[in-house]
Amino acid sequence: MQKNFVLSTTDRHSKARHGRLTTAHGIIDTPAFMPVGTQGCVKGVSPRELREMNAQIVLGNTYHLFVRPGLDVIKHFGGLHNLMNWDGPILTDSGGYQIFSLAKLRRITDAGVEFQNHIDGARAFISPEVAMEIQAALGGDIAMALDECVPYPCEYDYAAQSAELTTCWAKRCKAVAAHSVAATKQLLFGIVQGATFEDLRKQSAQAIVELDFDGYAVGGVSVGEPEEEMMRAVESAESFLPRGKPRYAMGLGTPPQMLEMIARGMDMFDCVLPTRLARNGTAFTAAGTLNLKNAEFALDKNPIEENCTCQACREFSRGYIRHLIKAEEILGLRLITLHNLHFYLNLMSRARTEIESGTFGQFRKAFVAEYKTRDAMMVE
Amino acid sequence: MQKNFVLSTTDRHSKARHGRLTTAHGIIDTPAFMPVGTQGCVKGVSPRELREMNAQIVLGNTYHLFVRPGLDVIKHFGGLHNLMNWDGPILTDSGGYQIFSLAKLRRITDAGVEFQNHIDGARAFISPEVAMEIQAALGGDIAMALDECVPYPCEYDYAAQSAELTTCWAKRCKAVAAHSVAATKQLLFGIVQGATFEDLRKQSAQAIVELDFDGYAVGGVSVGEPEEEMMRAVESAESFLPRGKPRYAMGLGTPPQMLEMIARGMDMFDCVLPTRLARNGTAFTAAGTLNLKNAEFALDKNPIEENCTCQACREFSRGYIRHLIKAEEILGLRLITLHNLHFYLNLMSRARTEIESGTFGQFRKAFVAEYKTRDAMMVE
Repeated sequence: MQKNFVLSTTDRHSKARHGRLTTAHGIIDTPAFMPVGTQGCVKGVSPRELREMNAQIVLGNTYHLFVRPGLDVIKHFGGLHNLMNWDGPILTDSGGYQIFSLAKLRRITDAGVEFQNHIDGARAFISPEVAMEIQAALGGDIAMALDECVPYPCEYDYAAQSAELTTCWAKRCKAVAAHSVAATKQLLFGIVQGATFEDLRKQSAQAIVELDFDGYAVGGVSVGEPEEEMMRAVESAESFLPRGKPRYAMGLGTPPQMLEMIARGMDMFDCVLPTRLARNGTAFTAAGTLNLKNAEFALDKNPIEENCTCQACREFSRGYIRHLIKAEEILGLRLITLHNLHFYLNLMSRARTEIESGTFGQFRKAFVAEYKTRDAMMVE
Repeated sequence: MQKNFVLSTTDRHSKARHGRLTTAHGIIDTPAFMPVGTQGCVKGVSPRELREMNAQIVLGNTYHLFVRPGLDVIKHFGGLHNLMNWDGPILTDSGGYQIFSLAKLRRITDAGVEFQNHIDGARAFISPEVAMEIQAALGGDIAMALDECVPYPCEYDYAAQSAELTTCWAKRCKAVAAHSVAATKQLLFGIVQGATFEDLRKQSAQAIVELDFDGYAVGGVSVGEPEEEMMRAVESAESFLPRGKPRYAMGLGTPPQMLEMIARGMDMFDCVLPTRLARNGTAFTAAGTLNLKNAEFALDKNPIEENCTCQACREFSRGYIRHLIKAEEILGLRLITLHNLHFYLNLMSRARTEIESGTFGQFRKAFVAEYKTRDAMMVE
């Protein structure tokens, strides 16, 4: 059997890796950033624009899509690719994270989670089997095992129990995949939990790896814990993950955090910051974030970032974008969204090149230093 | 002196005309639809997208731009073309309509209008001279004389007085243009008022035409009056407008209304319906409007309109767009906006072809009949 994931280069001075993941709808060069298409669309942009900025994969949120438009509609359209007119790879999450962060009246048992959705309050039940069934209907190229994502801070005993439940659910997801037709085209990733406890992260990683997934995610990070703890949680899990499979650090992060995660052996990332902050007028640059609502930009004829090749920077000034944001014109947040997504995708592309050239270490150090210094000055 | 406006064909059975208006930033084929760029941007779309849909001119709202970002910013950027990165023709209105519909605490005298803007309540005064000065700073290709636009219904005496004031202001605008440098590049259009009174429309048209503008607008229509009165107001003015100058019916209208106005000798139109209704989920088709929020579209795999060549129809289904609108995703209203603007622009392009081929009469009749019949069935 041909391998889905091939590593081409590993950094000598860190755990950074450059690889290539093959899916049913195409190839993903890693490290990879996955724009988040929460409700079947990356907020503010079209699939055509995603292709123009060389996005290779988008993420779909199972919970959101299950609630609206619902499985009947998605099945009728023949899956998420057809519905949203995106023919590249899609990763669907399991829905777990949103059930635990958005839904109401949750009741968790070994069987699964009962909840009321946040839109119309309708009751639903998601088990590992149901999560797999929904993801099969969505038809993503990568499915995720159902997990419980605990909040921060979390007591040791609860974190231990929860990680065990996640392992038990992972087993059941794997069992479904073994007998499903969809699974022949779908990769399935397991998720390591264990909160901020080193031994739990180790146990969880070992138990999940034992189940032999196509890839491994580190979940339950970036849930409000200090950055140090986030780094430690990933490190604790990473050493038990097999070298030959892709690793996905879920829900991360700021640009420097992503480089730090790459240095710690992570390959895939998803994050709503580029789209969410754009809607607030905040743009990412190598020198840190800019709040384009600020009066200082009113007369600024420069692009958001000098030498950036995104559509916003090629065609428009900071001053104009500021005006659009202040005037609540959609074009304003769209332009910042296009820039921010381009920035994140470009950062990954740059990281791949630097790993390939053996210069990732210098790049990471210089980038993190430059970003942090100026960010402190420009913080909102 | 070369003529700015050249008529190439006049319909034999109606007053419809096909012409070409030359401005400092390019050519406008008439009948022409002008997308409305209220605050220096056509809501939801970029200049690049406007070019892709063959928009030849956009409208800028003087009042809105005067209030925000303000003249200092616009002057700093070297005018509206540079600010918004649109290098085609721009028409700026005089600001009058918005002062009368949006601003607060208006006080009208012969001198001008004193008001408080609707954003921060700052006081300002706009006279014919100030309106010309602002429009010179905006640097549009076509400027409009300051007028008073009376509401509907309006008493005869007030309408008469107001039309006289508009003539008096038009004279002063013309006087400014005669001595301004900007005016050498800018065309100036006068505006006919007179509410729904035939004799006032005639008097106003004669008085405004006497002043010899580069084009003539019929203002004070589409302000809430019945469609019949709107048609009559335009007819009353039209017969006194010179054949060799472009005629602009302000703030119109539905697709059938636009064809009716073309048949009555009008050449230029601006209307917020395509963008405003899009934000409400409503799409224009030859068969009438569709409210894409309706449940009937949830499973609809067809494009908004069969054979439409806009981006939305080439790439997405009604069912997906419905989902986006229900989920409040910006992409949804953007796709409908792209379709609606394309629909309006395409309708004008079709009208030009039909006039050229001598078949405008049949086209108009068939279109109006088809549109109205189905629209009644599909009304929200």
